[in-house]
Amino acid sequence: MHHPSAIRPEAHAAFHPEKMGKATLFESERILVGLNCFEAGQEHALHAHDDMDKVYQVIAGMGLFLLEDRELPMESGLMLVAPSGVPHGIRNTGPGRLVVLAILAPAPGSRAGTGG
Amino acid sequence: MHHPSAIRPEAHAAFHPEKMGKATLFESERILVGLNCFEAGQEHALHAHDDMDKVYQVIAGMGLFLLEDRELPMESGLMLVAPSGVPHGIRNTGPGRLVVLAILAPAPGSRAGTGG
Repeated sequence: MHHPSAIRPEAHAAFHPEKMGKATLFESERILVGLNCFEAGQEHALHAHDDMDKVYQVIAGMGLFLLEDRELPMESGLMLVAPSGVPHGIRNTGPGRLVVLAILAPAPGSRAGTGG
Repeated sequence: MHHPSAIRPEAHAAFHPEKMGKATLFESERILVGLNCFEAGQEHALHAHDDMDKVYQVIAGMGLFLLEDRELPMESGLMLVAPSGVPHGIRNTGPGRLVVLAILAPAPGSRAGTGG
């Protein structure tokens, strides 16, 4: 993908029949801008990252943000920030596909980043 | 703002009658998640950041992404990534307000960050 250009993130969604699909829109040492793509019923189980913040922004679909002590309804346009060390996950509870922008800083695998 | 929680970014928009308004949704050393808010006719002139990547995601409104050699139409749902060193800006050319998610990594003013 060439940057800078105006892109519609959902046009790059990548689904996988057996687990959450991932697509990368941009990556540097500092940041990973990607998509988490869920078929109906799929989820990304509760997990946490050390020394890395994650921003979710829902692009399309409906589901739940999973947190350590509660679940929050998610729908298009909602954002959730999981600061470093805070457990988070996603479950697609809707009838259709769910596409969520997932931004991590720093990028996983970079010098400062851990996890994915 | 408490994190993690599900937020609707545009609910935190802050406008300024004389220049682009800014709001911060989350900030750490690693990342700044904010809003750039434009009244009709306002712009953020072409500028660049060293050692910092910026992600724009349009939340509401219409305008132009400003780049060194061209201008690209922007509307709700479009993203533009300005990698480190790449000049970028925004002009609100629509009849109403323009709200754009602006994510910077690392955060301006952090050890690694420069500019804003």
